[in-house]
Amino acid sequence: MGAIFIHETAVVDPDVEIGSGSKIWHFSHVMSHCRIGKKCILGQNVFLGGTVEIGSGVKIQNNVSVYSGVKIEDDVFLGPSMVFTNVDAPRSFIEQKNYTKTLVKKGASIGANATIVCGNTIGTYAFIGAGSVVTRDVPDFAFMYGVPAKQQGWLSRAGARLYFEDGSTDSCEKTGEKYELRDQKVSLVPQ
Amino acid sequence: MGAIFIHETAVVDPDVEIGSGSKIWHFSHVMSHCRIGKKCILGQNVFLGGTVEIGSGVKIQNNVSVYSGVKIEDDVFLGPSMVFTNVDAPRSFIEQKNYTKTLVKKGASIGANATIVCGNTIGTYAFIGAGSVVTRDVPDFAFMYGVPAKQQGWLSRAGARLYFEDGSTDSCEKTGEKYELRDQKVSLVPQ
Amino acid sequence: MGAIFIHETAVVDPDVEIGSGSKIWHFSHVMSHCRIGKKCILGQNVFLGGTVEIGSGVKIQNNVSVYSGVKIEDDVFLGPSMVFTNVDAPRSFIEQKNYTKTLVKKGASIGANATIVCGNTIGTYAFIGAGSVVTRDVPDFAFMYGVPAKQQGWLSRAGARLYFEDGSTDSCEKTGEKYELRDQKVSLVPQ
Repeated sequence: MGAIFIHETAVVDPDVEIGSGSKIWHFSHVMSHCRIGKKCILGQNVFLGGTVEIGSGVKIQNNVSVYSGVKIEDDVFLGPSMVFTNVDAPRSFIEQKNYTKTLVKKGASIGANATIVCGNTIGTYAFIGAGSVVTRDVPDFAFMYGVPAKQQGWLSRAGARLYFEDGSTDSCEKTGEKYELRDQKVSLVPQ
Repeated sequence: MGAIFIHETAVVDPDVEIGSGSKIWHFSHVMSHCRIGKKCILGQNVFLGGTVEIGSGVKIQNNVSVYSGVKIEDDVFLGPSMVFTNVDAPRSFIEQKNYTKTLVKKGASIGANATIVCGNTIGTYAFIGAGSVVTRDVPDFAFMYGVPAKQQGWLSRAGARLYFEDGSTDSCEKTGEKYELRDQKVSLVPQ
Repeated sequence: MGAIFIHETAVVDPDVEIGSGSKIWHFSHVMSHCRIGKKCILGQNVFLGGTVEIGSGVKIQNNVSVYSGVKIEDDVFLGPSMVFTNVDAPRSFIEQKNYTKTLVKKGASIGANATIVCGNTIGTYAFIGAGSVVTRDVPDFAFMYGVPAKQQGWLSRAGARLYFEDGSTDSCEKTGEKYELRDQKVSLVPQ
């Protein structure tokens, strides 16, 4: 159960840590000094740049490149062909040594073919719709879409819509978990 | 003429049916129990998930992944880096067993880098512009673009604009084929 | 310093010219009769169609396909997963023999996941924002973004914003280089 699987067409450079139960599929490339947690899945043609850190339980769909400067926490879903960046104003003829950081927090989902402009943080359990372009920080539990992405509402951990005004609570229709909105921040209410 | 070509870097899993004259190019992967028709072209880094059905005469450009739950009819064009999905509200930590179905009907074209949200049907000979995000069903012969994609008009099989009011007909400027709009549905008028 | 590097997983077809110092990375494919200048970088899963010309100092990020009919001048940056096209109204069942040309001029940058509809010219040092869809010609030094992309302003070679009215000049805050806007065209003023 805990075996690591690396498909024979994938390339994993030296000095990479991979947690038990993780799988790396066809034509993917992991550069040196990456750290990948447990039970992760890297699909076809995934790329991890040098020193990238990926938490446990992360699913990275086909054609996603996670560049140096991007950090992925536990239980994140990166949809097919979503795109990160790590330089603000890239020019081929200007050497860029300092990468602009991007952080994707625990449990967040980024939809298919979305683009995350570097320098932003995607909050815990946030959800970015397919094809969106994210140009600013995304709050915890926020549901965003569009070009540029705008907040459309709130979602529970299970992905159900939540409706509230500031100071009120709502329950997830799938799990019954209770959430509170206070000062424009959503949090899970301990049961 | 009828030979099947599979590039030496491509991976085709066992129990795949491939029609005569079809070609599979570099770094592509076809999973088990797929059925591919005749004279299809799969470009570089194409992926077909398990049990996917592709009709005959289909062209799949580079970097397209057709996931389980997506069905492609004859003569469809899937532009470079267009993206399908197969789960409504993906979360890395929730197992999704039932894929939401997507159907691309005969002769339709999906433009470069477009995104098709799952659960929708792309009509016969419909045309989706480059970079669009499709979030609902697309009528036969409809021309759609934008984020989200909206209908901009009608196109003939040959890709020429058609102009009509309900109950009227128009002819394709390229082929002379005659089309009729009735009850907001376009059909080809038999000659 | 001048050695050419081709990763062992890349495929370079016969009769390709590659300039000194250029590197071709994992799972990339270069077709016959391409010409690549000096000190270029082709990332993972890059594709160059037959007879494509790439200038010197060009950086092509992961998952970019440069199709026949697209020409790339010196010092261009092609961001990750950006997408070109080469046919106006693609239909799988219609053979398209004449590609619609696209030109990316010296020093231009195209952002991550942007789409360039064929038939357009991207001007010298122009800058296309991430996730944009370009549907018309882009002036020299223009900064464009959106779907469809609209001009948002002007940028210097170093990527700093320039502000002027017609007939006036402005200086780059990074380099001090002086630019002039005249008849809605920006040019670098010789020092």
